[in-house]
Amino acid sequence: MSDNKITITLPDGSTRDYSSGTSGIQIAESISSGLARVALSITVNGEVWDLERPITSNATIAINTWDSEDGKYTFWHSSAHLLAEAVQELYPEAKFGIGPPIENGFYYDIDFGDKQITQDDLQKIEMKFLEVARNKNSFERKEISKADALDFYKSKGNEYKVDLIDGLEDGDITFYSQGNFTDLCRGPHIPNTGVVKAIKLTNLAGAYWRGDVNSKQLTRIYGISFPKQKMLDEHLHRVEEAKRRDHRKLGKELGIYLIDSMVGSGLPLWLPNGTVLRRTLESFLRDEQIKRGYKEVITPHIGNLELYKTSGHYPYYQDSQYDPIQVDDEEYMLKPMNCPHHHRVYSSDLRSYRDLPYRLAEFGTVYRYEQSGELSGLSRVRGFTQDDAHIYCTHDQLKDEIKNTIDLTQFVFNTFGMPVDIRLSFRDDNDDKYGGNMEYWERAQSEIKEVADEMGLDYTIAPGEASFYGPKIDFIIRDAIGRKWQLGTVQVDYVMPERFDLTYVGSDNEKHRPVIIHRAPFGSMERFTSILIEHFAGDFPVWLSPEQVRVLPISDDQNEYAQQCAQELRDSGIRVHVDERSEQIGGKIRDAETSKTPYMLIIGAKELEAGTVSVRRHKKGDIGTFKFSDFLSHLNTEIAEKQLPEN
Amino acid sequence: MSDNKITITLPDGSTRDYSSGTSGIQIAESISSGLARVALSITVNGEVWDLERPITSNATIAINTWDSEDGKYTFWHSSAHLLAEAVQELYPEAKFGIGPPIENGFYYDIDFGDKQITQDDLQKIEMKFLEVARNKNSFERKEISKADALDFYKSKGNEYKVDLIDGLEDGDITFYSQGNFTDLCRGPHIPNTGVVKAIKLTNLAGAYWRGDVNSKQLTRIYGISFPKQKMLDEHLHRVEEAKRRDHRKLGKELGIYLIDSMVGSGLPLWLPNGTVLRRTLESFLRDEQIKRGYKEVITPHIGNLELYKTSGHYPYYQDSQYDPIQVDDEEYMLKPMNCPHHHRVYSSDLRSYRDLPYRLAEFGTVYRYEQSGELSGLSRVRGFTQDDAHIYCTHDQLKDEIKNTIDLTQFVFNTFGMPVDIRLSFRDDNDDKYGGNMEYWERAQSEIKEVADEMGLDYTIAPGEASFYGPKIDFIIRDAIGRKWQLGTVQVDYVMPERFDLTYVGSDNEKHRPVIIHRAPFGSMERFTSILIEHFAGDFPVWLSPEQVRVLPISDDQNEYAQQCAQELRDSGIRVHVDERSEQIGGKIRDAETSKTPYMLIIGAKELEAGTVSVRRHKKGDIGTFKFSDFLSHLNTEIAEKQLPEN
Repeated sequence: MSDNKITITLPDGSTRDYSSGTSGIQIAESISSGLARVALSITVNGEVWDLERPITSNATIAINTWDSEDGKYTFWHSSAHLLAEAVQELYPEAKFGIGPPIENGFYYDIDFGDKQITQDDLQKIEMKFLEVARNKNSFERKEISKADALDFYKSKGNEYKVDLIDGLEDGDITFYSQGNFTDLCRGPHIPNTGVVKAIKLTNLAGAYWRGDVNSKQLTRIYGISFPKQKMLDEHLHRVEEAKRRDHRKLGKELGIYLIDSMVGSGLPLWLPNGTVLRRTLESFLRDEQIKRGYKEVITPHIGNLELYKTSGHYPYYQDSQYDPIQVDDEEYMLKPMNCPHHHRVYSSDLRSYRDLPYRLAEFGTVYRYEQSGELSGLSRVRGFTQDDAHIYCTHDQLKDEIKNTIDLTQFVFNTFGMPVDIRLSFRDDNDDKYGGNMEYWERAQSEIKEVADEMGLDYTIAPGEASFYGPKIDFIIRDAIGRKWQLGTVQVDYVMPERFDLTYVGSDNEKHRPVIIHRAPFGSMERFTSILIEHFAGDFPVWLSPEQVRVLPISDDQNEYAQQCAQELRDSGIRVHVDERSEQIGGKIRDAETSKTPYMLIIGAKELEAGTVSVRRHKKGDIGTFKFSDFLSHLNTEIAEKQLPEN
Repeated sequence: MSDNKITITLPDGSTRDYSSGTSGIQIAESISSGLARVALSITVNGEVWDLERPITSNATIAINTWDSEDGKYTFWHSSAHLLAEAVQELYPEAKFGIGPPIENGFYYDIDFGDKQITQDDLQKIEMKFLEVARNKNSFERKEISKADALDFYKSKGNEYKVDLIDGLEDGDITFYSQGNFTDLCRGPHIPNTGVVKAIKLTNLAGAYWRGDVNSKQLTRIYGISFPKQKMLDEHLHRVEEAKRRDHRKLGKELGIYLIDSMVGSGLPLWLPNGTVLRRTLESFLRDEQIKRGYKEVITPHIGNLELYKTSGHYPYYQDSQYDPIQVDDEEYMLKPMNCPHHHRVYSSDLRSYRDLPYRLAEFGTVYRYEQSGELSGLSRVRGFTQDDAHIYCTHDQLKDEIKNTIDLTQFVFNTFGMPVDIRLSFRDDNDDKYGGNMEYWERAQSEIKEVADEMGLDYTIAPGEASFYGPKIDFIIRDAIGRKWQLGTVQVDYVMPERFDLTYVGSDNEKHRPVIIHRAPFGSMERFTSILIEHFAGDFPVWLSPEQVRVLPISDDQNEYAQQCAQELRDSGIRVHVDERSEQIGGKIRDAETSKTPYMLIIGAKELEAGTVSVRRHKKGDIGTFKFSDFLSHLNTEIAEKQLPEN
């Protein structure tokens, strides 16, 4: 290779040679003009660069578009500069602090002096933002000496940037300018401001300079921007939907759970409706597990510290564990995981190869410390119940068992109408943190891939994402509004069988080590329920609804018939309530709609006489009058088939 | 009343006048000669006396027979003297330590010098015991000075009695003699040795003098004696039965639970079979509770210490509670009871009189410290799950709710074929420890009594046995071998509604205090299961059996048909296993009998051809050949009706 040639490795592993000094945008153009059009930045050996910046040595690169995290990061970073430019145009006295991209958008902390910024002002700033963006100015990068940088901001009277520059090394400082606005910045940025087509300033908040309550409070403006107006519209719709579906709001309205500070932070109490929901989910999974040969156990919520020392979880994960409790001369801990308890059940008896696979399942509650600021409803808690199971099997059985666990997990999510993305998390061959026999790792990884192929799964492989004790399969579900949630995991484990000295007697009469699969489709009953509430926006499928039918007699004369219908439903195992209050039927219907009861049976004089029921479906309204027995049989089918709601 | 008359109050509250100096035996004779014949001692103002001892002032008395605790205590105390007499006859050099009555019998600690006592020796001692008992010697009481008492034992070279006498006050020492044997003793004793008709020396153990490991180790002989040989036979049978039924033995054999020191003392792990049993019990009670209008909740296993400070359980019951865990700036405790959590659920929403009675149920796990020496299998543990419920109601609803809870409790125990004794535990009017409004207490007690009468219950009233916060009803069940166990409680509570400031809005639009009923029919799932195992000796009714049917193909040719039968059973919700091993049918049957599987279906070529099954019932053997569908429908009925096993 000649001196002025460099080799560029693309994400698919292919390589191309370029002249030294070739820029990201040139590489993009050499691949396709379409790619060059949507390129936002380039990642060079793990670092994000401007597309214009020359590359002078061999590198592994990725061209970043809106579809990549790095692309969005560049886009929003540049949008923060545009926000500052717009603000500078409207409020020339404004002094800027810091303005980084964040997970969903960006913010800028600004000192507006005495001026109070309001929601109305935000609209004005948005208009100005779009106006300056349309100038299609490019972001000019300039290296600047520390002295010059300080002079620049001192002359503007901006003590914040001066404070920042004070902390930087000379020779390491860059400015970026677009249009009339210049900012202290490391970059990188998008090719020009015209790419930003849509902006929403979402929130206003106070923020102390450098987070120090003794410093001045600046105004933080949050925003999110997009390359297309349609994307912003969709985003705003999703935000509204997410707000409407927020499980903390619905959880309260529907009587699902309660967080009570007197009981404890992050310790949900399951209210009657939530308990029905949870028990129904548990029964659903339990029945399925029994069919698939699992055995259920119940183990204590605490365990001797020795268990976790043996597993290595103590003191390794001590930060997320509660302090031990002294009992006589022993120490006990709220259990951070169920595994050691199950391993002790396994080892409590002699196991033969004939007993394997031995599948132990438990709805097991574990306790993990989270900072109080991190706690949120049912989704981030300090105590939660895993739908845990451990499968002890021979190496020869591993492949079939992985297949079974994937099949079960998919069955579970299908039942809720949740599409699943699958990630095979394998070892990083360059990392030596992994435990267990490498031959087994290789075999397990290739078997996992074989299973995934045989099952026709659409999967991605993520090297380096394996746990230290074995490869795993992660399930990422998409909910009704397209959000992704990582839920179930299937995890192969070669380490714990060693640590707990687990054995079985083989057909050769010798002792062997089993291999363990850890798996939990829901993951946590609490978190899964929070996702379920938001996925269905509280309009659960009938089989899951805490109240499935409400019977609404129009007047007291129909109360008796209403109770008869209710009793027949109850005898059929249906959760039903009769609204016998002396209220107008309109009010009764309204209340049933509010509590999201799927079916309302309206019973007036006509229905009583004809032995029929007038059926109303939640959110759909009247669906006709039926013979009671026809309604019951339809309902039983809907429940037995676990039908999903139509909308 | 003249000077030489005394008034004697009998247990039924009636009074009789006697001359001062009348003895217990004279009082017994004045009541009936039958009573005098079986009288063993007399309790005078709470102290147990010899029947011959003169009574010289007014007193409340009870004549003690074998049927009373005090009577047995006297009987076994005297039997300890007889044991010593027999030993003295056989081993004149033996020196006696102490020999008290205990819960079931008595023991004596004896220094046999160099002589090793064996089981064979015990038989000789038993013979001698009966021989000296038949002398019908009376027990002669004699007050003796400390100096004379010391002389007596010093001359015998008995350092143990000398040690005991050293610790006594002069003027406070008595000897008792029967036949040739004299003992340092406070008494009291039975009228004469002839009353003791049967003896079994049950055990030999070593015991350090005064429990001090630095003192000499004496030989402790345990025994139990009876006034009739038949009673001893029955006792020995019960002991054998109890041993055979011991839940610790059966619990292991049947795979019900595991205590693992590495997990923790007193913290049972429910093994697969035990989990099926427990889940079946829970479902049974849950279904019944839903029918009766209970709502289920699930609350965390830990709670903020504030909860228990509010309830008053901390620091009051601190000794039986685990140390608090520091979390940030709060303290948490493993919950010692579920009540406060439920009260917080109640108070989390505005309650109206229309919402009452509000019945909250939970299978809630609580943790209570027990000393490690007290722990035993499932019956004495450190963490257990209560079938807890709290009913919040108005004072006007209290009576109906008590009735409902009694009815539920009786229904539960009837299902297991356990007769129930009922004790109404009321306040002691002379004690001022009780909380809450006295008017409510009076009303509740009279309503409890009314309910008991209306329901035709056979009950006893126990004044002073109420809890400090309200009267309660205790349920004492008798198991299959006649042992009594106190299980469920129904408890009225006027105090916690105040402490947790619980209210409801009445029809008058004013706030009122509800009253609470605490109740738990099983009490604890762990303890109830231990009783259930022993009650049924592991031969559970079919509906409770972890494995209900085992299908036993005679040869591999019938495996497929066996699996078909099993699948049909499974589809019907029956827990079934196919024994496909290549074993002789005799071996398969033996294994199924050992694991106490209620039904075995034996399938050979004949059955396969005819589409029948040959049915074997555990412990009964072959019960005939049936069409498979007939067997299934019979089995479904047996399960649905929760039929009890016949033996």
